[in-house]
Amino acid sequence: MDEKKRTEISELGEFKLIDRLTANFKPIQATSVRMAGDDAAVIDTGNQYTLVSTDLLLEGIDFDLVYTPLRHLGYKAVVAGCSDIYAMNGTPRQLLLGLGVSAKFSVEHLEEFYAGVQLACQTYGVDLAGGDTTASVNGLTISITTVGSVDKEKIVYRSGAHVNDLICITGDLGAAYMGLHLLEREKRAYAGSDSPQPQFQGHEYILGRQLKPESPRSVLEALDHAGIVPTAMIDLTDGLASDLLHICKQSQCGARIYLDRIPIARQTYDMAEELHIDPVTAALNGGNDYELLFTVPISRQEELFKLGEGIEVIGHITEERTGVALTTPDGDDIAITAPGWK
Amino acid sequence: MDEKKRTEISELGEFKLIDRLTANFKPIQATSVRMAGDDAAVIDTGNQYTLVSTDLLLEGIDFDLVYTPLRHLGYKAVVAGCSDIYAMNGTPRQLLLGLGVSAKFSVEHLEEFYAGVQLACQTYGVDLAGGDTTASVNGLTISITTVGSVDKEKIVYRSGAHVNDLICITGDLGAAYMGLHLLEREKRAYAGSDSPQPQFQGHEYILGRQLKPESPRSVLEALDHAGIVPTAMIDLTDGLASDLLHICKQSQCGARIYLDRIPIARQTYDMAEELHIDPVTAALNGGNDYELLFTVPISRQEELFKLGEGIEVIGHITEERTGVALTTPDGDDIAITAPGWK
Repeated sequence: MDEKKRTEISELGEFKLIDRLTANFKPIQATSVRMAGDDAAVIDTGNQYTLVSTDLLLEGIDFDLVYTPLRHLGYKAVVAGCSDIYAMNGTPRQLLLGLGVSAKFSVEHLEEFYAGVQLACQTYGVDLAGGDTTASVNGLTISITTVGSVDKEKIVYRSGAHVNDLICITGDLGAAYMGLHLLEREKRAYAGSDSPQPQFQGHEYILGRQLKPESPRSVLEALDHAGIVPTAMIDLTDGLASDLLHICKQSQCGARIYLDRIPIARQTYDMAEELHIDPVTAALNGGNDYELLFTVPISRQEELFKLGEGIEVIGHITEERTGVALTTPDGDDIAITAPGWK
Repeated sequence: MDEKKRTEISELGEFKLIDRLTANFKPIQATSVRMAGDDAAVIDTGNQYTLVSTDLLLEGIDFDLVYTPLRHLGYKAVVAGCSDIYAMNGTPRQLLLGLGVSAKFSVEHLEEFYAGVQLACQTYGVDLAGGDTTASVNGLTISITTVGSVDKEKIVYRSGAHVNDLICITGDLGAAYMGLHLLEREKRAYAGSDSPQPQFQGHEYILGRQLKPESPRSVLEALDHAGIVPTAMIDLTDGLASDLLHICKQSQCGARIYLDRIPIARQTYDMAEELHIDPVTAALNGGNDYELLFTVPISRQEELFKLGEGIEVIGHITEERTGVALTTPDGDDIAITAPGWK
């Protein structure tokens, strides 16, 4: 590794890094409908589009095996993969699993992991269609490739949001993040202890959201049933702020979201208060909620409301020049800017 | 990670491990043509099959950045991905790249890597269609997802070999392995030196095979042109022994290959001699040659020979009960058995 000029990745941030690395790539294949910039690659396979996404989950970054049961991790890996396909309004159908496994893992450990994978595959109706298991030096490396399909007229990109579209989210936000903080606190409290007795009572919801998240596919089914195709969509994995910025960047628009409209669960509030964390910050920057952020034309507002629970309108799309901002109950606008490199 | 019963992965070996982990998975989706057991997953997308494969390359296991230029590594990652698609007689078309990057890497490092990816994408006609770049704790993690297509009547599985079929390989074997040994020797010789001057002259071929391998797609084009569809195929990544066993297991057959038919390049012989390594062992167990091993009905022998260079017939398929063996020039059979966990 030569060291002539050195630009830290953190100087660029995630957005600009990918732009810079992929700037010179020009499509060759006629079947490549979309290159980078969405949750999944879009490939024209005749009557339908085939969607392919890839996720990398690394021990020590994306999960901590001190408090993450391998069965839950397997389940979550599948949900993470399916989430990318749902974000394109598609149906996940096949999954390929790559595992790098260090010597600390036994066959029984992998069986636990695969039990979680299998349960999630059954829940979401996907087939484990292939993969690769190899040795690793350090810990567990998981790569998930998810393949799905979508009718051509129903595909949703990040780039389709228009001025005045309603900004909607499914479920509530920040719960996975507060669950993570709780797990980290109990880990610190019992570090070195042979008989840890973590205090989890009353926190089942936020723990579940962290350890065994689910995709809100029922909302997609309800939208489809009502004949509503979102204009843009993304899954909430980086946090509301970052994911909204992705939509606005790809759609070349601005956005206003309202602080008091962001749905935050009771348990999320309580844990945030206990840990002296701003619950709105948890919702904006927490990530890993696996909910969906999508936009819908304002003309469909009434039909949207009829769909009932599970969808919250938190703001609307604006002109690009107005930027992306969070409006407080006092009417102040707080600019939402590009996140750094995590 | 509970520790009730502990079976080491090495006790099972790679073959049995995957079998055991995936034994309970039953297909759900009608479009899942093939589950595990081939180089790529096979998905029915209408007129054609879509092929999807995934590979994981881990620093410290699959590559050593002391002697692997990042540009070469990027190139090799793409070749590794394309190789899986060629092994199904398909055409690679899109690629998704997942990178886990630790703090030791700069933007310039990643640009080097992407330059190699781009060159290989142009060479093999594939589009970088998506991916994911995240932080990692330790070194560089690369996941490559390759998407290809194949006409339904031309797909080749590992499972189609029949008794008396000819066993063919492209190119020559063991070169990548000897290139790796040379690089490791020079690394040891100059460990701690500020101005290493490794001795690589005269070894360009084996170094090239290790650092910048190519897929023998021209052979597939020649076979296709001659109207020959192999009965079974696999890419030579684990080594001839292991990959032949895969074919025999999936095809429920045995095999005889002849020691003096295994093509080994002059430079491979020379380096093996210098390092006191048996060149046949390098060919059998070395791996990473990215050549193809395939079987062809004996009735096509004449047409096969007309194709000329680049294809070597090294043996033939036998009944399952006769096992898999290497026949020496003296007529002795040496059994080829399942490899362990690397």
